[in-house]
Amino acid sequence: MARRTVFFLSDQTGVTAETLGHSLLTQFDEHQFDQITLPFIDSVDKAEAAVRQINAVATEQAARPIIFSTLVHNELRQRFMHASGLFLDFFNTFIGPLEKELQMKSLNRSGRAHGMKDSGAYDRRIEATNFALNYDDGGKIRGYERADVVLIGVSRSGKTPTCLYLAMTYGVFAANYPLAEDELESTDLPKVLKPYRDKLYGLTIAPERLVQIRKERRATGRYASPQQVSFELRAAEAIFKRWQIPFVDTTSFSIEEISSTILSKTNVERRVRP
Amino acid sequence: MARRTVFFLSDQTGVTAETLGHSLLTQFDEHQFDQITLPFIDSVDKAEAAVRQINAVATEQAARPIIFSTLVHNELRQRFMHASGLFLDFFNTFIGPLEKELQMKSLNRSGRAHGMKDSGAYDRRIEATNFALNYDDGGKIRGYERADVVLIGVSRSGKTPTCLYLAMTYGVFAANYPLAEDELESTDLPKVLKPYRDKLYGLTIAPERLVQIRKERRATGRYASPQQVSFELRAAEAIFKRWQIPFVDTTSFSIEEISSTILSKTNVERRVRP
Repeated sequence: MARRTVFFLSDQTGVTAETLGHSLLTQFDEHQFDQITLPFIDSVDKAEAAVRQINAVATEQAARPIIFSTLVHNELRQRFMHASGLFLDFFNTFIGPLEKELQMKSLNRSGRAHGMKDSGAYDRRIEATNFALNYDDGGKIRGYERADVVLIGVSRSGKTPTCLYLAMTYGVFAANYPLAEDELESTDLPKVLKPYRDKLYGLTIAPERLVQIRKERRATGRYASPQQVSFELRAAEAIFKRWQIPFVDTTSFSIEEISSTILSKTNVERRVRP
Repeated sequence: MARRTVFFLSDQTGVTAETLGHSLLTQFDEHQFDQITLPFIDSVDKAEAAVRQINAVATEQAARPIIFSTLVHNELRQRFMHASGLFLDFFNTFIGPLEKELQMKSLNRSGRAHGMKDSGAYDRRIEATNFALNYDDGGKIRGYERADVVLIGVSRSGKTPTCLYLAMTYGVFAANYPLAEDELESTDLPKVLKPYRDKLYGLTIAPERLVQIRKERRATGRYASPQQVSFELRAAEAIFKRWQIPFVDTTSFSIEEISSTILSKTNVERRVRP
């Protein structure tokens, strides 16, 4: 099968074009794609340079490139109409129906989907990120009243990346608390967590996967041993069940899926939108 | 102007539907939208519940809802064809042209764009996130040889969130080093950074904005004073120029924009794709 080069074109960061294009390409996963992002195409010169780059690839390769574009300006977009490639236009395809529905013209200016629309949203995300860093791994335990959610689970069950993702993407204040060995030996809920029962969300993971993850951190010793890992996970799940704490198994989930599961299963509000 | 409710429908996390919808809605920014994400619609029952929710909103409000969908399965998607709303169908619109171009059928299975396609990509992102946490704020300085990029700048210029975003989104190993007062007083490059000159990238920011950001952290004292802030920023920029370190002004940039600027201006490779 001929390799294909895929271009992501944007007048801004390219994050939207990549996200959309990528979600379509996963539907063809036995195909090989070489991916090139061309961000910040905000002038005719840059557009023409991009067209030349696309045409050069088309000449070299057996199959023409696929082009995913979120370009907003007609003047720039038009340059690509005759580029050698399949041009898939995310902006133009949907903006017409939306204008008609809303009975107003679009601003027709560079997408600021990932831009600094207001410094308020930026500040909320940074504040949430700092919160996640301060309240990581039980680092601080006073101040949970400010948390939207407190993730609990054993070491390396995915708490830290999930908290950071919730903070950076949604501006959610997420703390996390690792269940320590002595806490796992009883099925009591750690005292510090008791006042915040309605904010708790548990993470668990398959023992084989956790052994693998822990081995990368510390190859030998009890920490990554199958016996220890099984004991910890069984004990953590017993705590979740006894205290009716909702929990999610992270084994085959990405950070995005874990985060969006937590948001959809709780009443935690997004403070910003991606 | 009538308020509009916008629904984001997905059989997975909803991240792609939100990204698409949000990038289009920013083109109508004087309009008010109420946004509801309905993720994990993976059964006929859930699809029908979603249709009822959409129709209820349509009945209550003056204007019908707008629906952004990334639903993959025909059977589920068809339930929404007669929902009261403008149905914008991301998947179906683009998958046909792609199938034709690639001369193959799509897998037609739930989008795993934000799913756990392979645990390798997950591991790389987690590893990069742990690296960013360990090498945050000059916390560790041995090991910069493992870094893809080392961000430098004064306190609160955006280094930490940018490193975390680069790690979580692209699996890039990003360290950061804060320029301390004594280092700013000379325009010499800190000794520890000298071997890694080709990995350095500077962040700067407008003094007024930095004063505002620092005041939120510590309201009084020299740290957030206009004189101190101006001195630090001038000195940092002098270092960037003297040592020919590329730098970006983060004042009106989002974390996504700063990150994608750095990637597009350097040869740092993405280890994973969003």
